[in-house]
Formats: sequence, structure tokens, C-alpha cells
Amino acid sequence: MNFFFDVTKTDPTGARRGRLTTPHGAIETPVFMPVGTQATVKGLTQGALEELGAGIILANTYHLYLRPGHELIRKLGGLHQFISWRGALLTDSGGYQVFSLSELRKMTDEGVRFRSHLDGSEHLLTPEKAAEIQLALGSDIAMVLDECIETPAPREKAEEALKRTTEWAKRARNYFLEQVTRNGDLPQWQFGIVQGATFADLRRESARQLLDLDFPGYAVGGLAVGEPHELTCEMAGEVTALLPKDRPRYLMGVGRPEQLADYVALGIDMMDCVLPTRAARHACIYTTEGRVLIKNARYAQDQRPLDPNCSCSVCRRYTRAYLRHLFAAGELTAAILATHHNVHFYLDIMRQIREAIEFGNLANFSSEMHARYTLGPA
Amino acid sequence: MNFFFDVTKTDPTGARRGRLTTPHGAIETPVFMPVGTQATVKGLTQGALEELGAGIILANTYHLYLRPGHELIRKLGGLHQFISWRGALLTDSGGYQVFSLSELRKMTDEGVRFRSHLDGSEHLLTPEKAAEIQLALGSDIAMVLDECIETPAPREKAEEALKRTTEWAKRARNYFLEQVTRNGDLPQWQFGIVQGATFADLRRESARQLLDLDFPGYAVGGLAVGEPHELTCEMAGEVTALLPKDRPRYLMGVGRPEQLADYVALGIDMMDCVLPTRAARHACIYTTEGRVLIKNARYAQDQRPLDPNCSCSVCRRYTRAYLRHLFAAGELTAAILATHHNVHFYLDIMRQIREAIEFGNLANFSSEMHARYTLGPA
Repeated sequence: MNFFFDVTKTDPTGARRGRLTTPHGAIETPVFMPVGTQATVKGLTQGALEELGAGIILANTYHLYLRPGHELIRKLGGLHQFISWRGALLTDSGGYQVFSLSELRKMTDEGVRFRSHLDGSEHLLTPEKAAEIQLALGSDIAMVLDECIETPAPREKAEEALKRTTEWAKRARNYFLEQVTRNGDLPQWQFGIVQGATFADLRRESARQLLDLDFPGYAVGGLAVGEPHELTCEMAGEVTALLPKDRPRYLMGVGRPEQLADYVALGIDMMDCVLPTRAARHACIYTTEGRVLIKNARYAQDQRPLDPNCSCSVCRRYTRAYLRHLFAAGELTAAILATHHNVHFYLDIMRQIREAIEFGNLANFSSEMHARYTLGPA
Repeated sequence: MNFFFDVTKTDPTGARRGRLTTPHGAIETPVFMPVGTQATVKGLTQGALEELGAGIILANTYHLYLRPGHELIRKLGGLHQFISWRGALLTDSGGYQVFSLSELRKMTDEGVRFRSHLDGSEHLLTPEKAAEIQLALGSDIAMVLDECIETPAPREKAEEALKRTTEWAKRARNYFLEQVTRNGDLPQWQFGIVQGATFADLRRESARQLLDLDFPGYAVGGLAVGEPHELTCEMAGEVTALLPKDRPRYLMGVGRPEQLADYVALGIDMMDCVLPTRAARHACIYTTEGRVLIKNARYAQDQRPLDPNCSCSVCRRYTRAYLRHLFAAGELTAAILATHHNVHFYLDIMRQIREAIEFGNLANFSSEMHARYTLGPA
């Protein structure tokens, strides 16, 4: 298989510099992965993502299964070809989306039965089916189906979800390995997902159970869903302490700009979040001076770039005054430009994080980020 | 002044090849100008417009006067600097938008009193004010305020509007020339607008009256608003026959792809239309094989580019199947990619038109275009 993960350097915090090699390129880690839920990062063309230096993006199994359908994508040569993306792709399993988007969800040991949020049609998503869909999509990294629960969760419910998540992980792994037995090595890595809500012992238990399944990489799921940042970090730390050092760790669905370094310090290698793209569409701009809510009247005559310290193509060319006008006028171009900048901002933080690890200096970087976002203009 | 217009070649049809030199670059004519109503071409960044080879774009006086305000734009260095556009800009006067968008419109000899479609605030737009606003914006080419009327119009109403349009053109010209007297040469050309509805003699009368005002360029307004294409051509032809050969002629608000060459054959040098951008947002793609309504299920598995004969960056990279998916999923990226292609298609037609004129072959090109769009798939 054309898959490798190498840790090249560690930082006193526990952070790791590494390189994740996939059939679609090598990715320097820690990495932030822009989210392209429906096979597009909202507001960015694939060319723009390349310009931004994104080496890996996310897509979503639930969405693509429902529309346009994984069989169609398989027939058209897989997701990379369908969207014309030469970089790496990671697909989420759909567990979270079934939980958050679909109607009449019914969870059984077999899988989850749900109605599509698009047309109300009924579907059954099983661990095997989620793995099959992702093999059809041909993503470089596939996630197993897990059971997501509301938080804060009662312990009993968290235990049940953990148990089911492990059972499902076994079935997903078996399905995947059967395909390998049948077809030889597959151009895909399958990652397990550690659950356990906010209970440290359940998190550890979940991790240990998944380790037995020998996944090439492990994700931490069900966090950053409303609990305090410190608790997110505590739970993630419980898990990473148990995970093998030679395999990538992915913290799902994080985070705010000032939090990224904290997660990295816990030994996280991969992260994804809709925040930079979603915030951009809502006129919330991330900058080295803090958040800029660009619709604010104070920016009407502001001839500075969105971020005076940013080197992205938007900051090199356009003013805050112009962006404010575009948002006020409800223009498409507003979302395009703001998204471009925000994604650049996230990817640039990751470049700085990687550099800080090289210099063994991540703790300082992390403090600076928190100060900036606490003290900076709202 | 850094303004010149040179006709370099004529075609047996009456079409002209030329070059319009402005302080913001030289533009090969005949030219199609993408419309950037609110200081942005919907869905295209300025960088994308440069990639597409657009040398001149439109902006709208009515919209920019109301939001963000011409004084703000003047203060920020003018429209070119505000939007970071190095090419040429033409601003429409606002006459048509007052007519089509505003509420409680009241036309008097003084000007037009209206309520903003944004906040209901009351405004008075006079010929002098429209000229003043456009000088504040600093567009390369400014249009005089004209009176637009509904068509088909009774002759009496057309006569009245013609009379007022001429009176207003005089006042706008006087205002502009006073500014020149006061400040020296201005970096702007002011164009007159010929009206006269669908009455040939009124069109001729309007043209003759405006010729007395010695504008550096002339537009034909109030056409392509629902009347048959043949009538549009007839009216435009009546006017261009009278206009000076050494000055640019601008047919406002046209047209469909297959009609562009017809207008050029009548001696038109400049055109603008929202059609390529608006159609793109509604999933209507213009191609050399006819219109492609990309949401149609027939394209779900179509791995060809939007237009197999197109060299634009969208057609070089993406399939119809992917574009259909993006439109079906309501993704921003759909509008971005479709707009890019459609504008490229229009600008490419203009390149072919200019080439056809060079070869004295425009009539053939025009026939081909009509055949293509009549016989092609809907």
C-alpha cells in the first residue's frame, strides 16, 4: 500500500511533526482538513484549494450516499475523479450526520435506520454499508460508522453507545479486511473512532477495545459538541496517551483557531472543522488581530486588508471596506473571498504550529494564540 | 486625455474592428462587457475576470449611489481602487434601474424622484446628479441619465421621453463640460444615449439631437426589452447609420449569444448583458453545442466538460456530472464555475467576432451562430 505515517519530530508538549503519505500525495502533519461535505468546499474551487496549499480535504458519506449516490460516483471513477481533486480525501462515515440531520432515526444493533433529510426516503446504514460506500467513493481515508449521542450524556447511555461503537468497528474492520482478502490491498486506510462521551474511563476503554482491531489510524469522536474546551482536551488527552505512537490520530470536528495548538499539544495529528468556511459565509473573519465581524459599520471605510499580517491573495488585493460592501449587498463574491481568507488563516496556523514543533516551541505559540483571541477585537 | 477610439478594419456587413484606449487599458472592440452591478460580477473575483481576459466591466450608478454611496467610494479613491480593478469601468447612469427597481417613481423635467428599493428613503436623481455621482465613482465611461419607458410604448409617450432624454443629455453634457472648464480634462468619457422606442423616425431624431452635443461615444438604449430581435436590429441600424464613424457605439443590455454578431454587423462596438452571469446562476450553460440546462437528469453521468470545445479553466477540469451535482446540492461552487464558463463563452464569441471581421467574414459567423442555437439541444 502507498500509505505511510512517519513522526519526524516531537515537541516537549507531546506534539508530533509528521508526514502522512497517501496515494494522493504526502501531507505534512499536524494538518487541518477543510470540509467539503457535499464534494465541494463551499465557496472554493479545487483550484483555489490548491492555491491555498490544502493537501487533504473531507467529504461526507451520508451526503454523497444520498446525493448523487455512491454507485454513481464509483461508476464515474471515484470521488477524486468526480470532483477533479488530485490531493487526498478523507470521508466521514455518516454516523454524525445521521444523528444530526436525518429524521425518524432508529438505532439498532444492526445499524441505523433513517429517513433522508432530502426526500424522506428510508435507508439503513450499517457498519458494512458505510465501509462499502466509502470504498465506492475511493477516499484515501475512511472512517468506521460510530454511534453519536447527545451530550452531556448519562453514563449508561455513553456505555451503550461505546459498546455499539466497538461492535460496529469490529464489523467495519472485518468487512474491510474481507475486501482486502478478496481483492488484495486496497488504496484506502480505515480509521477507528474512539467514543465514550465525557467519561475518562469510558474513553480509555473505547480506545483499548479499538486497539485490538489494529486500525492504521485512530480518531477521537463525539467531542467539541458543546462541552468546555478543557474537558475536550482532557478527554482527547486520555485517548492519545493510549494510542500507538506510530499511527495518526485525528480529532474530529475541531476547532476554533486558538484551540488548534492545544489539540496538537495532546498528540493530535489531524483535525477538521466547518468553522472557517461557515464563519466566512456569516461574515466572521479570522485574523491575526482577532475576529473581524466584517459587516460592522466600523469597517465601512477601512482600507486595510482583512488581516494586515496575511499574505493570502484576498488580503493582497481587497480592503475591508470592499468586503463589507459585498456582504452588505449580499453578493456571492463576499462568501468566495471571505472563505478563501479564513481557510488560508487556518492552514497558516497549521504551518506555524508545524514550525513551532520543529523548534520545540509549541507551548509558547499556544499561549500567544489564546491571548490574541481573548484580547483581540470582537 | 488618455482616451482614443480607432477603427482599424471594417467588414462588408458594416461591422468594425477597433481599439478603445482608456486610462485603464486598451480594449479590443467589438467588446462584450460583463455586468458588475453592485461593484462585483456575481460569482467572479477580479482575479477570475483577469484570467478570463475581461478588459472592461460595468457597474451601476443607481446601486452604488444607494449602497455604499458614491461619496464613500470617492473618499476611498474611486471605484477602481475600491474594488481593486485595474481594467476599464463603465457606469450606467441609473435611469434604467430607477425605472425598473425603485418605488413611487415620479418623473419631472427636473429629474426623477424615487424611493430606494433598499430602505424606502427618498432621492432625487437629476442629469447633473447622475453625472456628479459617476465622476465621484471615477468610471472610465459614464452614461447620461435618460428616461426609460415601458415598451411597446404609444408614440406620444415615446416622443415625450425622447424630448426629455435630449434635454437631460444637454444638462448632463453641460455639467460635465463645466467640470472640465473648472478642473481641466477629466479621466472620463461621457456617452449620450439614443432613445425613441420602436419608432424609426424618433430613433433618428434622437440620434440627430444628441449629435449636436458632441459626445465622444453614443449608446442605443431602450432596446432588447421584449421586442422581436429583428425590430431591435432595425432600430439599432437606424441609429448607427447616423452616428459618426470615428466614435464608439454601445448597444445597451444585449444580448443572447447568437445575437451578438448581428449587432456587431450593424456597426455596434460595445455591448453588455446580465444574461451570461444570471443564466449561469440558474444552471443554464451556454456552449458551442447550444444551451445545456445542466440540472437535467441526462447529465448525471455525463463525463464531458460543460462544453467539449471550450478551453476555459472550468471545462479543462470539471465534468457536467459534477456541475449537475453541485447545482442539485445548491452549492455556491456551482454558480462560481458556471459563471466562469458562461462569461468565457461570451468573451470567446467576441474574440471570434473580431477575428471574423479581420477576415471580412462576419456574415458567415452570424449564420453559424443562429443555426447552432436554433438546432442545438435545448
